[in-house]
Amino acid sequence: MAALDLTVPVDQLAAALIDIPSVSGGEHAIADAVETALAAHAPHLSVTRDGDALIARTELGRPERVLVAGHLDTVPIKDNVPHTWQDDGTTLVGRGSVDMKAGVAVMLSLAAQLTEPARDVTWVLYDHEEVEESKNGLGRLSRHHPHLLEADFAVLGEPTSATIEGGCNGTLRADITVRGRAAHSARAWKGVNAIHGLAPLLTALAAYEPATVTVDGLEYREGLNAVGVRGGIAGNVIPDAATVTVNYRFAPDKSVAEAQAHVEAVVAGSGIADYSLEWTDLAAGCRPGLDAELARSFAASVAAAGGGAPRAKVGWTDVARFGALGIPAVNYGPGDPELAHADDERCPASDIHACRAGLEAWLTA
Amino acid sequence: MAALDLTVPVDQLAAALIDIPSVSGGEHAIADAVETALAAHAPHLSVTRDGDALIARTELGRPERVLVAGHLDTVPIKDNVPHTWQDDGTTLVGRGSVDMKAGVAVMLSLAAQLTEPARDVTWVLYDHEEVEESKNGLGRLSRHHPHLLEADFAVLGEPTSATIEGGCNGTLRADITVRGRAAHSARAWKGVNAIHGLAPLLTALAAYEPATVTVDGLEYREGLNAVGVRGGIAGNVIPDAATVTVNYRFAPDKSVAEAQAHVEAVVAGSGIADYSLEWTDLAAGCRPGLDAELARSFAASVAAAGGGAPRAKVGWTDVARFGALGIPAVNYGPGDPELAHADDERCPASDIHACRAGLEAWLTA
Repeated sequence: MAALDLTVPVDQLAAALIDIPSVSGGEHAIADAVETALAAHAPHLSVTRDGDALIARTELGRPERVLVAGHLDTVPIKDNVPHTWQDDGTTLVGRGSVDMKAGVAVMLSLAAQLTEPARDVTWVLYDHEEVEESKNGLGRLSRHHPHLLEADFAVLGEPTSATIEGGCNGTLRADITVRGRAAHSARAWKGVNAIHGLAPLLTALAAYEPATVTVDGLEYREGLNAVGVRGGIAGNVIPDAATVTVNYRFAPDKSVAEAQAHVEAVVAGSGIADYSLEWTDLAAGCRPGLDAELARSFAASVAAAGGGAPRAKVGWTDVARFGALGIPAVNYGPGDPELAHADDERCPASDIHACRAGLEAWLTA
Repeated sequence: MAALDLTVPVDQLAAALIDIPSVSGGEHAIADAVETALAAHAPHLSVTRDGDALIARTELGRPERVLVAGHLDTVPIKDNVPHTWQDDGTTLVGRGSVDMKAGVAVMLSLAAQLTEPARDVTWVLYDHEEVEESKNGLGRLSRHHPHLLEADFAVLGEPTSATIEGGCNGTLRADITVRGRAAHSARAWKGVNAIHGLAPLLTALAAYEPATVTVDGLEYREGLNAVGVRGGIAGNVIPDAATVTVNYRFAPDKSVAEAQAHVEAVVAGSGIADYSLEWTDLAAGCRPGLDAELARSFAASVAAAGGGAPRAKVGWTDVARFGALGIPAVNYGPGDPELAHADDERCPASDIHACRAGLEAWLTA
């Protein structure tokens, strides 16, 4: 098993984490390595393991408790593991450098060093963030160990270029299946072509103009896209079914039900006939929540560490889970979120150090 | 191994053939059964086996030789094997009843009985007709044993409701792939959605009005259809590629090159951008060829057996291979071609008897 030294410089720790592959569903090795490293370097923490997720808590009896969370999994590797360094050693390159092993490195470095933080801290590391919502490790922890997740404020270490990003967009997916009637393609007039029947829906999606919505002073940019299409069973058969999977990213001014109604209206308005719609993923957004007292003190610490003004988070993140638990939450982590999942994913070492400094200042103030 | 008795009534022989599953690629058992049955019941024939195809010839030194061909394979079984009888035992139901085990039964019944036909006969039974052209057993025989296929006229036993159907439409397939640019679906504006890019092509295909073309007095109905669509790699990724497979069935007044040019024009005219087109299947059509002397005598025999006036074959069939070999060829077999590949494929017993009578009269005249 790869051994992790939590006392090395935080950017080197991030590199070491990249070198332990942990594509969703394959987090066992990295969870083992983190558990062993916490036992070796952070005996002051009380650790609970659940599957390939870990909860590590200080128990100092402080009046406030904050929760800092990050996921251990990555999207699939594309020739980008192990890590490399570029730009004279100032840029860390590799799968997870942005999403989000640099953020996990910040957490583990502070978890080992901050033996007596000014606020009690709950460090949460979990599995299955990059796949369907039903597998999400944080969701599982909230069902199995709700009391261990109780906190006054939460920080999720998703990439934000070391600036606070408030809330997040919601996301939903639907499979829209158009029906036709099968026939031999030599006698196509006997059938109804379901793939042709998708044309109005794809035309409507291509013409759709996504909104930008201001919520609590931050701007959330939406999107409605086909992310999958499939149809046809053989080269000589007029297909009797064809399916488009759409993904709607919606601003946190909308409930899930309102977002569903919007998608239903767009689909019905496209003019497609004889279709069915099945929801395959539904996840609420989260309002920015920047009015909490702990959020203001955190923002001050981040600004002192060089971070900019808070902005909106457009990607869905697990801050929405904290919102649902009644815990104010923000995103704050190293790396440009627009490089998440990119083949050339890369993170400035300066972001990693800045996030460590921002969090350390807040937790020790 | 299932034993076939070629001397039973021809409709019972058809039923026995249905009960030997022979989906394309799985013709070994039925080829074995046919080879054994020919050895037992037709010792007057000279038999050559090639893979799962068989050529069985009379060698009587007659001045004319005719070739009668049929394929042993079927499309996949859909709970329709073994056979059943319906309509008081007058309708044979099951996979291959139409396409084309009833036609094969007519061939095998006559192959066993006609020990001294008036014209030498070459019976050809072959594999892999229902899949891509490159695997076609008749094509393989024409490469391995061209001299054994030489003939003055050919009859292909594909279903025609016991009427002569002249020539056939050509068929081609193309994969048209639209390119985009990948991005995380939470930041869709960073990408270009390739699935949305398919919309103009599907709209053009939905609006396309196929032609009906008269060739040598027979009417060929065309068709241009999407038979497959695929795109998308994950629920949170804007796809950078999406592909539509189109199938063009074209009248035999057009060469393959002319048909390709037509498809290229339709695709380009649809207005899709940044696409590539790859041909995956190209098969010429065949003109009716009803002016040959042997065709006229065959038509007279078929009319005497109750068949109607010759008409066009809209489906592509292997008559096109005989056309390419310079052998005039027609389709003639039991069963309604519009039921080919249907889950409820079914053939009137009367068609099977009529085809046997029509062929017998011609071969013994």
